[in-house]
Amino acid sequence: MIRASLSLLLISVLCGVLAAQTKVQKVEPVDFSRVTVTDAFWQPRMQKVATATIPACILYTESKTGRIRNFEKAARRQGEKHEGIFYDDSDVFKAIEAIAYSLKNHPDADLEKKADEWIAKIAGAQQPDGYLNTFYTLTGLEKRWTDMSMHEMYCSGHLMEAAVAYYATTGKRTLLDVATRYANHIDSVFGPGKRDWVPGHEEVELALVKLYRATSDERFLKLSQWLLEERGRGLGKGYTWNNKDWGGVNYVQDNVPVRDISHIVGHAVRAMYLYSGMADVAALMNDTGYVRALERVSEHVTDRNMYLTGGIGPSGHNEGFTEDYDLPNLSAYCETCASVGMVFWNSRMNRLTGESKYVDILERSLYNGALDGLSLSGDRFFYENPLASDGTHKRAEWFGTACCPSNIARLVSSVGGYIYGRASDGIYVNLFVSSTTTLPLAGTDVKVSMATNYPWDGDVTIALHPKSQAKFNILVRIPGWAQNKPVPGSLYRFLDASDAQWALRVNGKPASYTMNKGYAVVERTWKEGDSITLALPMPVRRVVSIDSVKANRNRVAIQRGPLVYCIENVDNNGYVNSAILPDNVSVAPEFRKDLLNGVVVLQADVPVVAASAGGQSVSMTTKRLTAIPYYAWCNRGSGEMQVWLPNKAVRFQVVTD
Amino acid sequence: MIRASLSLLLISVLCGVLAAQTKVQKVEPVDFSRVTVTDAFWQPRMQKVATATIPACILYTESKTGRIRNFEKAARRQGEKHEGIFYDDSDVFKAIEAIAYSLKNHPDADLEKKADEWIAKIAGAQQPDGYLNTFYTLTGLEKRWTDMSMHEMYCSGHLMEAAVAYYATTGKRTLLDVATRYANHIDSVFGPGKRDWVPGHEEVELALVKLYRATSDERFLKLSQWLLEERGRGLGKGYTWNNKDWGGVNYVQDNVPVRDISHIVGHAVRAMYLYSGMADVAALMNDTGYVRALERVSEHVTDRNMYLTGGIGPSGHNEGFTEDYDLPNLSAYCETCASVGMVFWNSRMNRLTGESKYVDILERSLYNGALDGLSLSGDRFFYENPLASDGTHKRAEWFGTACCPSNIARLVSSVGGYIYGRASDGIYVNLFVSSTTTLPLAGTDVKVSMATNYPWDGDVTIALHPKSQAKFNILVRIPGWAQNKPVPGSLYRFLDASDAQWALRVNGKPASYTMNKGYAVVERTWKEGDSITLALPMPVRRVVSIDSVKANRNRVAIQRGPLVYCIENVDNNGYVNSAILPDNVSVAPEFRKDLLNGVVVLQADVPVVAASAGGQSVSMTTKRLTAIPYYAWCNRGSGEMQVWLPNKAVRFQVVTD
Repeated sequence: MIRASLSLLLISVLCGVLAAQTKVQKVEPVDFSRVTVTDAFWQPRMQKVATATIPACILYTESKTGRIRNFEKAARRQGEKHEGIFYDDSDVFKAIEAIAYSLKNHPDADLEKKADEWIAKIAGAQQPDGYLNTFYTLTGLEKRWTDMSMHEMYCSGHLMEAAVAYYATTGKRTLLDVATRYANHIDSVFGPGKRDWVPGHEEVELALVKLYRATSDERFLKLSQWLLEERGRGLGKGYTWNNKDWGGVNYVQDNVPVRDISHIVGHAVRAMYLYSGMADVAALMNDTGYVRALERVSEHVTDRNMYLTGGIGPSGHNEGFTEDYDLPNLSAYCETCASVGMVFWNSRMNRLTGESKYVDILERSLYNGALDGLSLSGDRFFYENPLASDGTHKRAEWFGTACCPSNIARLVSSVGGYIYGRASDGIYVNLFVSSTTTLPLAGTDVKVSMATNYPWDGDVTIALHPKSQAKFNILVRIPGWAQNKPVPGSLYRFLDASDAQWALRVNGKPASYTMNKGYAVVERTWKEGDSITLALPMPVRRVVSIDSVKANRNRVAIQRGPLVYCIENVDNNGYVNSAILPDNVSVAPEFRKDLLNGVVVLQADVPVVAASAGGQSVSMTTKRLTAIPYYAWCNRGSGEMQVWLPNKAVRFQVVTD
Repeated sequence: MIRASLSLLLISVLCGVLAAQTKVQKVEPVDFSRVTVTDAFWQPRMQKVATATIPACILYTESKTGRIRNFEKAARRQGEKHEGIFYDDSDVFKAIEAIAYSLKNHPDADLEKKADEWIAKIAGAQQPDGYLNTFYTLTGLEKRWTDMSMHEMYCSGHLMEAAVAYYATTGKRTLLDVATRYANHIDSVFGPGKRDWVPGHEEVELALVKLYRATSDERFLKLSQWLLEERGRGLGKGYTWNNKDWGGVNYVQDNVPVRDISHIVGHAVRAMYLYSGMADVAALMNDTGYVRALERVSEHVTDRNMYLTGGIGPSGHNEGFTEDYDLPNLSAYCETCASVGMVFWNSRMNRLTGESKYVDILERSLYNGALDGLSLSGDRFFYENPLASDGTHKRAEWFGTACCPSNIARLVSSVGGYIYGRASDGIYVNLFVSSTTTLPLAGTDVKVSMATNYPWDGDVTIALHPKSQAKFNILVRIPGWAQNKPVPGSLYRFLDASDAQWALRVNGKPASYTMNKGYAVVERTWKEGDSITLALPMPVRRVVSIDSVKANRNRVAIQRGPLVYCIENVDNNGYVNSAILPDNVSVAPEFRKDLLNGVVVLQADVPVVAASAGGQSVSMTTKRLTAIPYYAWCNRGSGEMQVWLPNKAVRFQVVTD
C-alpha cells in the first residue's frame, strides 16, 4: 500500500518540477517502479539477478571482503584498520540500489531485511557532521577532502542513488536521510565562495540530481551544476593517482569546460557518468549549451569510438579511450560498467531530444556490451568484454575492484525503467519488452500492456486500456536496424540492402502514422481493447566497418535484430580462427530451445583452412559454422571467440597449439 | 695520473677486505676501470653510448623533463613544485653512473663537466642531516620515511652506485661524500633497535655494499645485511601502491625471509637487485645460507621462468612473474632493466661459486635480452623486449618511467667489468671480448690481451704478457652452447646433436687442460708471448622448449653462438607468421657487412602458406627466410617479428590485414 501511494507521490513531485519550467527535455521517464516486467527474455534474468547475482554481491561484500566490516568499524570508532580499497564503500551502496530495484519485481523479505541491516550499519558510520566514508574515517579524518582522486564524492553519489532507489521501492527513509545529511555536509564545504573541487571520478553529479528529485531541495541540483562547471578550468589537482601518465586531465574529463566538450577522452565509465549528470542538469536547468555539447560528443562516440556491441573504451591502460577508430577486438577493454553507462547516458539523450537513435544505441549496449558482463548463471562476471578471445578470457566470481557485478545487477533489475517514455500528449514505446504500466494521460489513466518474443522475433503487440477513451499519441520506436542502419553513426553499415519491411497495424489493420525522430507516431482516440502490432522482420544481416577501423578490414559481423553474434570454440571446434565467411554464403537462423536458455543460432557452411601432411602443408575443407548471440558467449567454459569474421583472407598465420 | 693510482688504491682496499676473511666467494671481479675494451662488437657500442645514449639521457633529464630542475628547486628551498614522478632522482644518478663508466673508455671533458655540474646541484639539494630526495624535499619533508613503497632507499642506492663509479673513474669525491652523508643519515634512522623498513624497490642493498667497498665503513655492509634480513617477516607495509593487487608481499619479495627464498616472485627488476645485494653480502659475510638460497632461486629461474633471450618477467601487469612456465612470446614483458639485472646477479653468482654456467646466463641476457633494449643508433629504447611482435612494438625516445635508458647505458659502458675474473692463483676469461687488462698475480704483473671477432665467429686468442715468468692458471670458459646445452637449466635443449668440437691450443699446439666447473683450466708457467687460442665452432643450432612452455610447442628457435635469432618483416615481407621451418631444411649463415652494422644472417628456403582465389582459398609457396640476431630487430622500422618459428602447423589462422 505504501508503495503504490509513494509512486503516485513521486510522480506528483516530478510533475510539479516539470510544470515550473520551459522544457528542453522532450520525454519524461517512466520509472522502473511503475513498470511490471513479464518478459520471457528479461524476467528470468531479473529473477537470476535476485537469486544469484545479488546473493553473490552480498557474499563478497559482507563475508569474503571487509566492505561491510568497514562500516561496522567506522561506527565503533575504535581506530580499527580499514580493509580493501578506498572506494569499496561504493559497492555496498550499489548492491543496495540493485536490491531496491529487484524488490519491485521480486519482493523478498529476507533480502529487504539484509538491506535494512546494512543501512543501519551505514547510518552508524556517519560522522556527526554528515560525512560518511569508511576509508577516511578509519585512516584519518584529517585527510578527508584533500585529494580529488580519492573517490569521496564518487562514493557519496552511489550512496545517494541507493537511497533514492530504496526509498522509491520501500518507502523507508533511513538511507535517504543519511544521504541527505551527507549531501548537506558536501554542500557546506563546496560551492561558490567555498572550496573548489573536481571529482576524480564522476558520479555525484547525476546522483545529486536524483536526490534533488526525491527531496525537492534545489541546493542539490545547484551543487551538481556547480560541480560540472568546475571542470576544465585548471582547478583539478589530484590526478597523479597511480603515478602513471594515464592522460592527465583527459583521464578524468578535466580537459575542457563541460560546455565545450566535443571529443570523448579518458576513462570511459567516468565519461558516461559525467555526460549522464550533464544531461540531467540540462533537462532541469534547460541548458541548451549542455545539450549541444552532449550531441557533439555523442556523434564523436558513434562516428569514431563505439564497438558494434555498444561497448566503449578500447584500452585497459586507462580503462578508456586512445585515438579515434582504435577499436581492436582481441584487446578491447569495453568495461561492463562503460556499457551500463552507455545505457544511462543514451536514455537521458533520448529524453532530452526525443530522438529514437539514442534508444538504438541504448538497446545495442544493453543487449550486447552490457548483458555480456553477466553470466547466464547470474554469478559470474566479465569486467572486460572483448570482441575476440584467444581462449584465455574467463568469467570471474568477483574482482578486486568490484564495480561491475553490482552495476550490471542494478541495470538488469531496473530494465523496466527503460521501456517507456512519456510526454504530455503521448506514450513512447522504446524497448520491446513484455510488460505493463499505467500512466495518467489525457485526463484518464492508461494501462499499456506489451507482449513480444523479442529479441528472437520482431512481432510486438501493444494493448491499450484507457480507463475512459481519450485522444493521445502512441510513439513506437522503429529501430534503425529494421531500416537501413545497424546502429547510429558512420562506423558501421549493412553489407547488403534488405527488402524486408516493417509494418504497423492498429486493431489488425494497416495503421495510419507519421514518422518523427525515428518513431512511428499513431495519433487517435484510443479506447479499451485497442491494440497496435508492430512486425519487425529479422533477417540475418552482415555488417561491415568503415575502412578506418583497421581491426575489421576484410571482416563482417553478423547480427539479427538488436543482437550481435559471435562464434566460439565450443560450437566450432578448432576452426574459430580458420574459417572464412564469403559474402555469397547464406546464413540461416534456427531457434534452439535447449541451448543457452534458448537462443536463435545462425549457421552457415563455410571454407576452413586446415593443416595437413604432418603439419607441413595446408588444405581447405567445408565446415558448419554456428554463431550464438554475443551476450551468451563464455557460458560453457573459455575458448576462442570472434565477432568479426573474415570474408576474405589476406594471409594465413601458422598456429602451433 | 690520479686515475691509475686510484685504481691501485681500490685494489688494495679490496685485497685488504679479502684478506680478512675465509672466503665463500671463489672469484674476484676485475673492475671495469682496469679493463680497456678494443672489441669490434662492443667498442662501437660503447662509443655510441658515449655519443648518443648518454646525450639522450642528458637531454631528457635536464631539458625535456624536470629531473635536474628538481634538484635546483630543492637546493633553493623556496617551496617550488616537484616535477615528474617520485623516483625520478634515480635517473639522474644512473646517468652519472653511465657517464662514469663511459669516461674510462671515452674520456670527454664536456661530459665530465656536465656530470660535475649536476653533482654540484645534487650536493646543493642535500639536507643538513644528509637526507637527499627531491620529491619529499619539495612535497613535504615531514612525510619522508613514512611509506616504504615510495622508493626513497631505491633512489639513495642509485646515488651510492653513481658516487662509487664516478670516484673510481675520476677520483673526485664530492658525490661520494654526498652519498656517504646520506648513508650515514639512513644508518642513523634504521637498523637494529631503530626503525624497521622493507624497501619497496630493492637497490640500496647492493649499493651499500659498493659504498662499503669504497669507504671501508663496515656500518654500510651491516646495514645492507640488516635490510635484507628485514624482509619476509611481516614488517613491510606500504605495498598498496597503485591500489591494485599486484601480488601483495610477493610483488616486492617480502614474502619469505631471504634465507628461505626458493621461488622467484613479483617484480622482476626488484628480484634481480635483491639477489645481487644478497650475493654481495654473502660474499663479504661468508653466508652460505644466502648462497644456497640464491642457487635454489637461480634454478627456479632457469628451469621454469627464463626466456631463451635471457629475459625474465613475462607479465606487464606486475612487471614480473606469474606462474611457472608462463613464457608467452608476443606479450613477453622482459623489461630491459630485468635483463640488465640478470647480468648483475649472474656475474655475482659466478664469483660466488666459480661456476661458468652463470656466465652462460649472463652472456645470454647481455647479448640478447639486454642489448635488444638499445637501438643501433644508441638513442632509441625498448622498455619491453617481447619475443614476437605483431608489428606494433616500437622503440621509443624516452619513457615516463625512464629506468631503462640509463640502465642499458651503464651496462654497456661497464661491459669491461664482466670479461675477466681473478683468483689468487689464476685468471678467469669469462666473456670473449677483445680487450686488455693488467693484473697482479703470482708475484708479478700479468698483462692479458684478448682478440676475437666474437660473436660472429668463435676464434679467440688470449695473449699473455707476464712481467716475469710465473706459474698460474688461465681458466677459459667453455660456453654451454659449445657443448650440449643452449643455456643452463631444463627449459631448452638443442633439437639435434652437433659433432662440432671446440678446441684449445697453447702456442699453437693442443693444450693440456682440466675441466672444472665449466672452465678449461690451463696450468703452466707462463712467459711473455705465450698465447692461448680457443676455437668454438658456431654451427646454426635449432633450440626447442620443454612441452610445459605452451607458447613454444611445435616451434624451434635458431641460435648461433650466444646469439638468438629472429625473423622480422623487413627481410621476410608479409610471411613472418606464414612460414614453417621444417626440421629437415638446412639453415645457412652468411656475414653481411652492410646490414645492421655488420651481422651474420641465417637463411633457409621454406614453405609458406598464402591466400589465393581472391582471399577465399589457400596455396603453398617456397620463400627465402632471412633471420637476424634478435638484439638487432626493430632498427629498420616496426614490423612483425618472431623468435620461435613453427616447425609444424597445427592450424592456420585467417589474417585479414
